[in-house]
Amino acid sequence: MIHILGAERVLLCDEEFRLLSKGAVAFLGDKILAVDSYEKLQKRYPEALAEYHPQGILLPGLINAHLHLEFSANQTTLLYGGFDRWLSSVITHRDVLMGEGAKEAMRRALDEVLSSGTTTIGAISSAGLDLEILAHSSLRVLFFNEVIGSNPSAIDFLWEDFLGRLKRSEEFKSSRFTPLVAIHSPYSVHPFLIKRALLEAKRLGGVVSTHFMESKEEREWLEESRGFFGDFFARFFGGVKPKALSTPLEFLELLEGQRVMLVHGVQMNEEELAKAASLGASLASCPRSNRLLGGELLDISKVKKAGIPFLLATDGLSSNTSLSLLEELRIALFAYAKEPLESWARELVLSVTKRAAYALGLESGELREGLKADLALFELEGIGECTQEALQWILHAKKVKTLYIEGKKVEVK
Amino acid sequence: MIHILGAERVLLCDEEFRLLSKGAVAFLGDKILAVDSYEKLQKRYPEALAEYHPQGILLPGLINAHLHLEFSANQTTLLYGGFDRWLSSVITHRDVLMGEGAKEAMRRALDEVLSSGTTTIGAISSAGLDLEILAHSSLRVLFFNEVIGSNPSAIDFLWEDFLGRLKRSEEFKSSRFTPLVAIHSPYSVHPFLIKRALLEAKRLGGVVSTHFMESKEEREWLEESRGFFGDFFARFFGGVKPKALSTPLEFLELLEGQRVMLVHGVQMNEEELAKAASLGASLASCPRSNRLLGGELLDISKVKKAGIPFLLATDGLSSNTSLSLLEELRIALFAYAKEPLESWARELVLSVTKRAAYALGLESGELREGLKADLALFELEGIGECTQEALQWILHAKKVKTLYIEGKKVEVK
Repeated sequence: MIHILGAERVLLCDEEFRLLSKGAVAFLGDKILAVDSYEKLQKRYPEALAEYHPQGILLPGLINAHLHLEFSANQTTLLYGGFDRWLSSVITHRDVLMGEGAKEAMRRALDEVLSSGTTTIGAISSAGLDLEILAHSSLRVLFFNEVIGSNPSAIDFLWEDFLGRLKRSEEFKSSRFTPLVAIHSPYSVHPFLIKRALLEAKRLGGVVSTHFMESKEEREWLEESRGFFGDFFARFFGGVKPKALSTPLEFLELLEGQRVMLVHGVQMNEEELAKAASLGASLASCPRSNRLLGGELLDISKVKKAGIPFLLATDGLSSNTSLSLLEELRIALFAYAKEPLESWARELVLSVTKRAAYALGLESGELREGLKADLALFELEGIGECTQEALQWILHAKKVKTLYIEGKKVEVK
Repeated sequence: MIHILGAERVLLCDEEFRLLSKGAVAFLGDKILAVDSYEKLQKRYPEALAEYHPQGILLPGLINAHLHLEFSANQTTLLYGGFDRWLSSVITHRDVLMGEGAKEAMRRALDEVLSSGTTTIGAISSAGLDLEILAHSSLRVLFFNEVIGSNPSAIDFLWEDFLGRLKRSEEFKSSRFTPLVAIHSPYSVHPFLIKRALLEAKRLGGVVSTHFMESKEEREWLEESRGFFGDFFARFFGGVKPKALSTPLEFLELLEGQRVMLVHGVQMNEEELAKAASLGASLASCPRSNRLLGGELLDISKVKKAGIPFLLATDGLSSNTSLSLLEELRIALFAYAKEPLESWARELVLSVTKRAAYALGLESGELREGLKADLALFELEGIGECTQEALQWILHAKKVKTLYIEGKKVEVK
């Protein structure tokens, strides 16, 4: 049965940011058949099940390319105001946050993801605790099995652990669930592990995600093997002060030939930005997380100048107050106060739709024939008279009204 | 009957930002009797009606020193992205926004004010449309009757209109409702009107509020009598191009000897900041409004350096998405990303409590013996183990749990 979903405004989220007034999407099964005016689609598909929302604003389902679901139990436990104190507090409280109550917290967090109009997430899985919840959720999930480990004496164990998680996640592979590989960061993964993990990534196909240049402490460590991370690793490595495993550029070179999504990049310098651009990497920015941990936001103009597509994501509840992309969009709108308001609003919309889809290699993120029928319909009073649709949607959207993933209506709490 | 309201954390909101653990406020009638540990207050007042909130965080009721309630019907009508286009859209849509539906919109907006834990507002009234709603609300209200008018031929009429509104508002004067005077701005009020209005302000006592240096267009006009405002006034003055009535400094000089709260000040230069400091003026900042209209935020460090106390306010729904101070605080926390996180959070809390009370000349804004029993109690899971109370409260507070104004419990929707 063909469905037609019509709305007062339809945001195609193509590169020209075209809009339709009284537009609609026709879809069959998991795919979009056509995007046109509601009237024309009704004529073309007279048998279709059609609905029209006169206060509606229809977008492709939003894509939250980077989050950590496993830490959803954090609310006021972790310390903010410095990457060093934050990471130390994560180590201290990790077991409690991932213990009793973690699953319930993850379920609540996913409800929030859906109600913000998100249809796809990129979830970094550190321990596999989130595997079954995500595999059984109605979301489209890119499940990034994260490899971590810099201490040579622990590498074999950590590799086996990673491989076990990866294999287990592969059992759940489906049209909506894609197992992938994430590399934790340049400071925490041995090049030996990185190379082996990249072979697994090649076997799987698809994008690799990695945190990169999130904090000043990271640069200090990678370039000079000193500072916070020196003491941090010494504690874990039994008093022996190790050295950094690679410079930022050497790390990027390891990723050559691989589709990569870098995460954060707040501290990237121009050389690193140029290198990332030459790799064809995308960059996911999480402004709320960056502000809470490091006290600095990504310099968007530098990233744009380097020609790197940036996308917006929430990060996990370990460093944010919600997994709602709507809230992240609002913060980004106001926090980047010097960006021209309307064009910035449009860029932000693209950063959670088309550009996020590009970064993750998805057949969605746009309303276009042949793409997945992942659709998010919101209601906004007065949208019919509005000429600043992207802006007003970011300002006012609180909860999605109707959500489709692969052409199936999803219940939103 | 004495009441004791106890909570896991009590934020006194004094200049040292002291906190009590398992603290409480005892109050009788409209006044705070004592602030101490819950246990001690129970012993001191054994007959009191006492309640304790183990997840509670208790603050003085919040103070939203600057808003325009009359424009509450705006949601997506007005144009953002430039002061010029915004002001033009206000003129075009003013009658509709203030027409049918305005009162219902104002009531809804006040519900939101209360549910954000606000006990006092400074409301700029342009037409008196909000008078009865505010006079009958449970909020503490500073009702700023606004004088406007720069065209000499209309001055008499506008003065009579202002005086009529002022007198009418004086009929509602009470312990919670204070009629005051606001001067619209340096560009829109003739010095002749300003002087007369200031005499009324002297008669009433209390603070005068005025928009000041909100936009680049304002400076261009005041200093060079050209730009957007040149055309704008020419339209209203029948084709004759008028000249600016005073420079920014001359305007400030008119306010000499008067307790003043300036609003916005985004474009103030150092000379003007120094002059404002010498007047003992406070400065109310509305970051969301500033970003939407002018695309720039107030440079807080300059304001602090000049020694001017700043406070945070929402402005009206004509230039904001909500009248919730909680949302404004969150935006300010993230938008001023370079301010040190924890101390900035504490400053922000003071900017809607103690400092706002100072700016408006209120006997509230702090939890201290003898002040008004205006109290806002929130619940925050894990507050007992939390060491970053101000920060976590700003991050997570969505809705007040219990609100007292002048010692009376107020229903919150």
